[in-house]
Amino acid sequence: MTLYGGIEAGGTKFICAVGTGPNDLRAVARFPTTTPAETIGQAIAFFQQQPEPVAAIGIGSFGPVDPDPSSADYGTITSTPKPGWQNVRLREQIQAALRVPVGFDTDVNAAALGEHRWGAARGLDTFIYLTVGTGIGGGGMVGGRLMHGLIHPEMGHIRVPHDWQADPFAGTCPYHGDCLEGLASGPAVERRWGVPGDQMPPDHPGWQLQAHYMAHGLATFVCTLSPQRIILGGGVMQQEQLLPMLRKAVQTLLNGYVQSPAILEQIDQYIVPPALGGNSGVLGAIALAEREARRTKRPAR
Amino acid sequence: MTLYGGIEAGGTKFICAVGTGPNDLRAVARFPTTTPAETIGQAIAFFQQQPEPVAAIGIGSFGPVDPDPSSADYGTITSTPKPGWQNVRLREQIQAALRVPVGFDTDVNAAALGEHRWGAARGLDTFIYLTVGTGIGGGGMVGGRLMHGLIHPEMGHIRVPHDWQADPFAGTCPYHGDCLEGLASGPAVERRWGVPGDQMPPDHPGWQLQAHYMAHGLATFVCTLSPQRIILGGGVMQQEQLLPMLRKAVQTLLNGYVQSPAILEQIDQYIVPPALGGNSGVLGAIALAEREARRTKRPAR
Repeated sequence: MTLYGGIEAGGTKFICAVGTGPNDLRAVARFPTTTPAETIGQAIAFFQQQPEPVAAIGIGSFGPVDPDPSSADYGTITSTPKPGWQNVRLREQIQAALRVPVGFDTDVNAAALGEHRWGAARGLDTFIYLTVGTGIGGGGMVGGRLMHGLIHPEMGHIRVPHDWQADPFAGTCPYHGDCLEGLASGPAVERRWGVPGDQMPPDHPGWQLQAHYMAHGLATFVCTLSPQRIILGGGVMQQEQLLPMLRKAVQTLLNGYVQSPAILEQIDQYIVPPALGGNSGVLGAIALAEREARRTKRPAR
Repeated sequence: MTLYGGIEAGGTKFICAVGTGPNDLRAVARFPTTTPAETIGQAIAFFQQQPEPVAAIGIGSFGPVDPDPSSADYGTITSTPKPGWQNVRLREQIQAALRVPVGFDTDVNAAALGEHRWGAARGLDTFIYLTVGTGIGGGGMVGGRLMHGLIHPEMGHIRVPHDWQADPFAGTCPYHGDCLEGLASGPAVERRWGVPGDQMPPDHPGWQLQAHYMAHGLATFVCTLSPQRIILGGGVMQQEQLLPMLRKAVQTLLNGYVQSPAILEQIDQYIVPPALGGNSGVLGAIALAEREARRTKRPAR
């Protein structure tokens, strides 16, 4: 059985795993994201300590990144605000140390690929995976291809209508203030209400506001991309009361205009949590490794 | 030389043409969109009267449509508000009368394909074509494929921030009121200011507001899709003063976050008019015909 390695490189923590799929994760390690030298060193050590070698590694990384295989900076974390991590050649460092093919994409595209390979997006060709946590980010597939383009999507940074009278909170985004991420990320919820979301009761009025902003985001993505499904991950989505409010708010916003049964009748199966739970990212990284092995056509070692 | 036929089926007018490309349009006819029987009849008669037969026909249609070749309703105009045109099986009628392969897509995807084949999107794999006229609609390619998904994008129907104090106009969209189309389509401009856009002087304050709303739309599309270029067609874009205002407003809204030279330094080549001018749609329909002929692999008759 060919083994693959996956690295979910998050801005808060790294998750590394070895395996072949959701039912065969042989080793998993989690550690906080500190300095590049320490954290990347830990990831390299994890793979070096495995009893069996991996045929390839996949990395799903926080960003912004350069995900273009034809670019000189492919696999680099570029202009991130995270101190010390600008211009870190993550893929190159992993590849140089472990000497296997290394696939690379954004964290959200990796999670999307994981859900496509084994989870809630199986059989679909156009869908998005959105994470709502420390930040808001989105990736996915259109016509069967992972989304890239000019660089890669930055779905959290769209502007949404903001009623300053009802919600005078100015938003947390250092670039845009009240973009979607600025209004509805985990830190935005905490700063607006003075308490972290996981300490707010389910009937706190903040959740209705949260559903309102997120529904604006999702309705925009529906109109722009026409996804066949929307998968919502990330820490904020652990609030189970959110999903039903959000589905209803999306229907209200679209107001019957997009005449698909998926939205009009079966929205419970249209806006869904990840089938792989918290493992979408690292499993997606393993799926990236599979792809990379196929692409490079090296025999498994 | 194999000839192809193209039909740009607009809600206001139909354009039919025969040819092989932008430098070889042998016949072109334009007529107003009245009833389906009359208008589709005129299109059929146009092709029947040609001295040489066409190998295939492409249709780029107003919508919403069903653009899914595997659907029983492929090529049908579905839930359009245009009286008499609901559930019109446009592709089927053309195919039955003219008995050649018929390709079908949205008007904006056809225009995008035309610009990809011969115009401003040559060599790109991810871009959008947006029309701003009677309505606002968008199509394009992601990863080299025309955008479809659940149905097809409805880019004009995204919500954008609307400052009711600065602009108390409620918008014209019967579904959403103040979505982008409701605030910035041609009819919205005319209803807000009481005069059609083409009679407003270039220094009318309405153009600054128009650039503001459109820039919100474009910045949203940049964040959601990461296009390599944005092509802007449609009647409202005939206002030449708009494009420079719009480019600047997009840069201001993105505020340096998307760190690509295309946006930071060369936005004049990033947000552009169609290279095929008013012919993007009908030439794109001819490009759809080419594709359909290739797909069906019938010899040219």
